[in-house]
Amino acid sequence: MASLVVPHHFSATEDAETLRKACQGWGTHEKPIIKVLGHRNAAQRKQIRQAYEDLYQEDLVKRLESELSGDFEKAVYRWILDPADRDAVLANVALKKSSPDYHVIIEISCVHSPEELLEVRKAYRLRYKRSLEEDVAAHTTGDIRKLLVGLVSAYRYEGEEINAGLANSEAVVLHKAIKDKALNHEEVIRILSTRSKAQLRATFNHYRDDQGTSITKNLLAERPDDFSVALRTTIRCLNDPKKYFEKVLRNAIKKVGTDEDALTRVIVTRAEKDLKEIKEEYYKRNSVSLDIAVAKDTSGHHEAFLLTLLGKEE
Amino acid sequence: MASLVVPHHFSATEDAETLRKACQGWGTHEKPIIKVLGHRNAAQRKQIRQAYEDLYQEDLVKRLESELSGDFEKAVYRWILDPADRDAVLANVALKKSSPDYHVIIEISCVHSPEELLEVRKAYRLRYKRSLEEDVAAHTTGDIRKLLVGLVSAYRYEGEEINAGLANSEAVVLHKAIKDKALNHEEVIRILSTRSKAQLRATFNHYRDDQGTSITKNLLAERPDDFSVALRTTIRCLNDPKKYFEKVLRNAIKKVGTDEDALTRVIVTRAEKDLKEIKEEYYKRNSVSLDIAVAKDTSGHHEAFLLTLLGKEE
Repeated sequence: MASLVVPHHFSATEDAETLRKACQGWGTHEKPIIKVLGHRNAAQRKQIRQAYEDLYQEDLVKRLESELSGDFEKAVYRWILDPADRDAVLANVALKKSSPDYHVIIEISCVHSPEELLEVRKAYRLRYKRSLEEDVAAHTTGDIRKLLVGLVSAYRYEGEEINAGLANSEAVVLHKAIKDKALNHEEVIRILSTRSKAQLRATFNHYRDDQGTSITKNLLAERPDDFSVALRTTIRCLNDPKKYFEKVLRNAIKKVGTDEDALTRVIVTRAEKDLKEIKEEYYKRNSVSLDIAVAKDTSGHHEAFLLTLLGKEE
Repeated sequence: MASLVVPHHFSATEDAETLRKACQGWGTHEKPIIKVLGHRNAAQRKQIRQAYEDLYQEDLVKRLESELSGDFEKAVYRWILDPADRDAVLANVALKKSSPDYHVIIEISCVHSPEELLEVRKAYRLRYKRSLEEDVAAHTTGDIRKLLVGLVSAYRYEGEEINAGLANSEAVVLHKAIKDKALNHEEVIRILSTRSKAQLRATFNHYRDDQGTSITKNLLAERPDDFSVALRTTIRCLNDPKKYFEKVLRNAIKKVGTDEDALTRVIVTRAEKDLKEIKEEYYKRNSVSLDIAVAKDTSGHHEAFLLTLLGKEE
């Protein structure tokens, strides 16, 4: 469930006017911006952008970019975009880093439903005039590239039907690859990038039944290199996204100085989806609420905005 | 342009009644079936199937399958399906052969627009409850698999913008791979499976300018193995589908006994698209019209049906 709180009354025109006022005159008034945008869902934000454009012949996104700054600006910019377009931006930013952040690519390609991933690929083409897989392939190399290109290009079957015999035999293939330290074997990539999520969950369950331990634990036992870490992320995103996001948040907050990028990314991308359950996971694992942890590690408008998306009462 | 001739007047109900009559009583009357279905476009055929179902609580496709036989049945069955669904069937049939017919897979993934390919992938999932790339990966191996999975998974950028520098440098990469006899180099597959068609055409043109000969000719000079043949098919489907189809037809007709499958496939899949230009290519290359060649190599209802799709006047 979403953590986002959306009030009953909504008028795109009123919101556009409020945002316009907040951006005018000396300085910017961040509070009304948070109060409005932090309580609107994707469809409403789209209507607000349209109303703002109609009223003032100006792009709201660009205006906010020029008015705001720092982590707060980044969070508002991420938030205001359509979800698929936002993921296209996140993917592009991740790829253009001097050392590409492949976790973001794995997250986008494995957490989303096949239809959602397709929307991201469409948004990416529209925005960058190249395909997502094209840029992934151009910015990565070797085994990581093979894995990532497979994952972003997938259009998996979405049904619940599974083939138990296949789950069994492919669990054996995966185990053999781990045992033989041949993780980059093409069968491993084939299985993870083409099978349906239901089928893969059955395979991972078989693995656990046969080996007495989970595949992710088994992968951890190896000396971790980039590729084995990428495989673990892949399996965790496919198998249990909520737990995966809990851990991203935990690591982001634990890090000295906090990983603001990761923190903002998870909160912004999940607030309308399952952030409520992710908060529960977080509390279960850390014995402290995510709201309190975020409040401690962030400050000012950025903090206020993230807490609003987390569903904090005013 | 299409070769299909569609009359001005159309009534799905009348057509359904005509088809019902043709299937009833002693024997089947193939002529009215050809006269109706051979002159209806995809949208109309869909309406006819629906009208038939509404009127007679019976699936027209299944009824025709049980009434007709041989090459004629196959051609009608292929034709009556929605184009994306038909390609899903063609891909599945090609994959399930004891030695998978990878040309059909390349054809479907490289001739279609990115959106059309996506429709085929959707239809495949719906019909077979697996993804197309999943079945391609499961039925092929080695380098061919890498190439085919890349091609069917692609969602290329569709615009005309090209990067000339990139076309130049990637033409060099392709030439080096051919020269070093390293066609299976992952860069070759990456380029062919992710770049936009406009970009690839620019790359192939650069290749020709630099080497004084086309890349397909250069590939031919090698001792041909399955993989180099697959690469040639890929490049030809991406670069000039009409010429490619002309050659498929030429080979199908030249073959002792005629390759009915290929002949029917090209006529059925292109009749609503560009079969008119393919016919022109055929005439230019063979100095005999495709209609005459087809009439010579086929017979009976199958012949009559193919000639109707080819646009022959009655």
